[in-house]
Amino acid sequence: MHIAFAGSRLDRADHIRSDAEALAALMDWRARVLLLDGLDPVISPEGTLSWGSLADTQADSELVFLGLGDGRGHFAEVSPDLIGSVAPANPRLWAAMAGLSAEELATYGAARSLVDWHARHRFCARCGCPTVLAKGGWQRSCTGDVCKAEHFPRVDPVTIMLVEHQGNLLLGRQPRFPPRRLSTLAGFVEPGESIEEAVAREVFEEAGVRVHSVGYVASQPWPFPSSLMIGCYAVAESADLTIDRTELEEADWFTRAEVEAAMRGDEDARFIAPPPQAIAHQLLKWWLSR
Amino acid sequence: MHIAFAGSRLDRADHIRSDAEALAALMDWRARVLLLDGLDPVISPEGTLSWGSLADTQADSELVFLGLGDGRGHFAEVSPDLIGSVAPANPRLWAAMAGLSAEELATYGAARSLVDWHARHRFCARCGCPTVLAKGGWQRSCTGDVCKAEHFPRVDPVTIMLVEHQGNLLLGRQPRFPPRRLSTLAGFVEPGESIEEAVAREVFEEAGVRVHSVGYVASQPWPFPSSLMIGCYAVAESADLTIDRTELEEADWFTRAEVEAAMRGDEDARFIAPPPQAIAHQLLKWWLSR
Repeated sequence: MHIAFAGSRLDRADHIRSDAEALAALMDWRARVLLLDGLDPVISPEGTLSWGSLADTQADSELVFLGLGDGRGHFAEVSPDLIGSVAPANPRLWAAMAGLSAEELATYGAARSLVDWHARHRFCARCGCPTVLAKGGWQRSCTGDVCKAEHFPRVDPVTIMLVEHQGNLLLGRQPRFPPRRLSTLAGFVEPGESIEEAVAREVFEEAGVRVHSVGYVASQPWPFPSSLMIGCYAVAESADLTIDRTELEEADWFTRAEVEAAMRGDEDARFIAPPPQAIAHQLLKWWLSR
Repeated sequence: MHIAFAGSRLDRADHIRSDAEALAALMDWRARVLLLDGLDPVISPEGTLSWGSLADTQADSELVFLGLGDGRGHFAEVSPDLIGSVAPANPRLWAAMAGLSAEELATYGAARSLVDWHARHRFCARCGCPTVLAKGGWQRSCTGDVCKAEHFPRVDPVTIMLVEHQGNLLLGRQPRFPPRRLSTLAGFVEPGESIEEAVAREVFEEAGVRVHSVGYVASQPWPFPSSLMIGCYAVAESADLTIDRTELEEADWFTRAEVEAAMRGDEDARFIAPPPQAIAHQLLKWWLSR
């Protein structure tokens, strides 16, 4: 299964993050800094990510250590003009990412999640004091004399699920989707529930149907802004749907032939399938191959 | 497989959270409020959780809507004296929890995670302004005129893994463990990596060994403070270990007979197994049953 945004070849070299001396030694003329336009990648004429040097960074930027590659430190810049901004994914970004190799897409995804987190986490949630970057960007520390809280980059687990009933598949449409696009249902895992419980709750909330036999299929990091997509499979107890219209515009059951037509991109398919970068696409492919 | 902290029978009733009128209607004399001593449960003489009414809460407390049970709203109180506190699990707490039913333990775990999150997230990480509880406690909203950021309870995905090599199992010891206790290795999933990549990275970081064939086994919500434990299985490429002594005091390979003896609680077992409430215990049981 090809999982987009996974497979970076940078070595995260965790031990260097807390070794101030080793980290400083990597910040030399050989260091590579990922060039960003806002949070979007700068694509080179060759269709690859563009990298600069520390000389290209602003004096008051923060630097995140992405990892080691070819013995060189790789960094991402949190520049002052990004602070506090919220930059959702956009069509221009998807076009830029479409040409990147799997490995580069993963490197970009990790960088984007981290830079975005730093840009939106400037203050201590516990006491309100400003925070500063620490451990090569894998922590922010409260500057308050008393609090001194440590904050870590956030990763939000999300369940996304193939729900089957007698050979048919449940697909739905969120209001923000492009025209005719349908996908598998999905939702955040909440405190106090297992993955399996989250799957069952989400399907019942959104489509009003109970599921059993929840199984894990695959996972994907999704950098918009920092989800961990957990792909699952479940069996519905009935085909009767009660759709929550605040979550879904529509939801229905689809035959194998209908899913096949959509995945082939047939013009007269009943719906348009999610793009290959989305784990939903890979889940549909997995389901068809069973 | 029995997963502790999962299996609450409260209906989270997501639709009520954003329905101010419905939520207010549940805050009547019938509402039940979980009694807490700090973040610890108050255990009744019958060995169950203790519940009070809204009359038992402080006027300046915030209330978290846990869900519906028997048609009544169930709430947890974020009292002013909890604000900013950090309360790690302690031996007294484990003793209190040991007597609770599976269902009640899950209800307590969810409540603890949520109350703890509210107690430690009083300010907007984006702009530093105070935040207020929203959507029945499933959100905090920034009170800043411009920012208005929405913040959601945090769930941190953690991989925890059975690592096998030629029939032997890799177990390690963190410095904070009780004497002779060993367990499976574990570590947080980072931005930009899949579950499978996180497993491989953690095992290599902590024990210096490469793994392949990573598979999912089971998951568990772990309310100290808000982890989602993702239990996996992986095969090591070699038995040679290079232990990271900042993470592990020791790590070694154990035979099936040695794991069996520890799980039986034999006095002369090579190590003491993790307790049944921990997913590590269930993973070991699963491994032995294969």
